[in-house]
Formats: sequence, structure tokens, C-alpha cells
Amino acid sequence: MTEEDRQKDLKFMALALEEAKNAALRDEVPIGAVLVDANGTILAQTSNRTIELSDPTAHAEILAIRDACRKAGSQRIPGCDLYITLEPCAMCAGAISFARIRRVIFAAPDPKGGGVLHGGQFFNQPTCHHRPEILDGMMAEDSTTLLKGFFKEKRERG
Amino acid sequence: MTEEDRQKDLKFMALALEEAKNAALRDEVPIGAVLVDANGTILAQTSNRTIELSDPTAHAEILAIRDACRKAGSQRIPGCDLYITLEPCAMCAGAISFARIRRVIFAAPDPKGGGVLHGGQFFNQPTCHHRPEILDGMMAEDSTTLLKGFFKEKRERG
Repeated sequence: MTEEDRQKDLKFMALALEEAKNAALRDEVPIGAVLVDANGTILAQTSNRTIELSDPTAHAEILAIRDACRKAGSQRIPGCDLYITLEPCAMCAGAISFARIRRVIFAAPDPKGGGVLHGGQFFNQPTCHHRPEILDGMMAEDSTTLLKGFFKEKRERG
Repeated sequence: MTEEDRQKDLKFMALALEEAKNAALRDEVPIGAVLVDANGTILAQTSNRTIELSDPTAHAEILAIRDACRKAGSQRIPGCDLYITLEPCAMCAGAISFARIRRVIFAAPDPKGGGVLHGGQFFNQPTCHHRPEILDGMMAEDSTTLLKGFFKEKRERG
């Protein structure tokens, strides 16, 4: 990876973290996503809205993919990269594969609910028919700090 | 299971199969779902619309869950049962768990893409925090015949 590519990745992950902070302000679990096409154009910037939308599937990743696919008029958006502040769950890993996302860049690992490095590791299964390139750990501490602070405050408020 | 319960299950699965046939008429992969509350009231009847909606997440199960959750004003609909004509994939298994579905009744197994009996077997993972009761194989042949016929016709049309 060139330094230029790395700077681009850092820029989009920083944006995803801003989205995650927006979610926290709405009292949603602070996870954000940014979906970018092959030219580096942002197609979607999203964060969790499961409470607001009464929709258990309204994870940042799903909202970004649905948004970009609707705009593209296709259920597949090959060549696109998805930046996420937390390891995707099994549900989101499935959607990422179906949408033919090229690269998945995520910040913090999620041992409790992740589906890429943890649990069923969907992308490593023979039932997965498109495996994106994975880059994990980018700005992981920022994401973990944000999530821990959110849940600590929730516990303290009771 | 009482004979009455079994007849109820068969009735809802027959409806899910009707939904699957509707999908085939729209040239979508024929998979249908029926979501029922604890009183046996139908909350959603859906089938695949990934092409029509340009949405890779628009599987029958996801559409049913989103529909019923929106109506309930909650991301969780405990006590509900989901009838599906094909084994759910990893994405749908995740959504089923998040929505706290009580029972999942499905017809045909899906060795190529299933996420319940196959692949990462999401409900058996420590990263799964709600495991529904599972009943598989109900009216499996009807579903398999429908799917095979659909794909055969697609191949023949070229």
C-alpha cells in the first residue's frame, strides 16, 4: 500500500468515526460507515439507526449499501470500498458479500458480535461467494474509546 | 407438537410457498416468507425483491422483519414465528436473531448459501445472542421443485 492510499484510507475512516459520533448524539450505538467508489467518490455516509427506524437491520453498513445500491440502480456495486468503525456482524458480512464490495476496512474488532474475525467468519465459509479484501485495525483505539464511553455513560445514567 | 400446531405450521408454510411463486412471476428468485405473531396473526407476507428494489438485502426474511418491526415500532418482535421456504443465509440469520424471532420454520435446506445448518451456522456461534427454535424440512420438496424449475427455465432462456 502506498502512503497516498494509506492517507486516503485514514481520511475515510476519520469520516466514519464522525458518523459514529453522530449516532451517539442520537443515543444509537456509535458505529459509522463510509462507502466510496473506485474513484474515491463518497456514495454513502451512514451510522446506526436501529432505534430511530425500529429496524434491527439498520446497521451503518446495511444503510450504506442500500443507499448506494439504490442510487446505482443495482444490487451489486463492485469496485466500492466500505469503511466501518467496528468489525461487521454476520448480517452485515452477508450484505457486503452480496453487494460485491471490493474492500472492507474496519477499525475495532468485535469479539462479542463480529462475523469477520469472530463467530462464523462468514467470508471464510464455502457458502460465501464473494470475499472482499479485508484491512482491520485502522484507528481501532478511537473507535473502541468511543464505544466504551457510550456504554459507560448509558450504564451510569441507568 | 400437537396436530393442531402442525396444521397451523403447514398452513403458514403453504402461504410462504405462494409468496415464493409470486417472486418467480416477477423474475426474482422464488423464496417466500410469512411472519406471524404469538396469536397466529399474520404480520408480514413477503418474497425476494432484490432486483426490483436494487437492494441486495431485500431477501424475503429481511423484508418481513423490517415490515413487522416498523409496524410494531420496535426493533424487537419477540414471540413471533417466521416461515421461510429456504434455509436463511448468514445475513438473514443475523437479522432473525436481532429481531428476537421465537421460532424459525423453513422448508428446503440450502447447502450452497445457507447460514443455519450450513456455513458459519450463525445460531450456534458464541457471537449469537438470541437463538430461535428451529424446525426445518417442512414442505421441503415443494420449495426445492419450485427453485429448481426457476433456475432450469432461466438457463434454458439463456
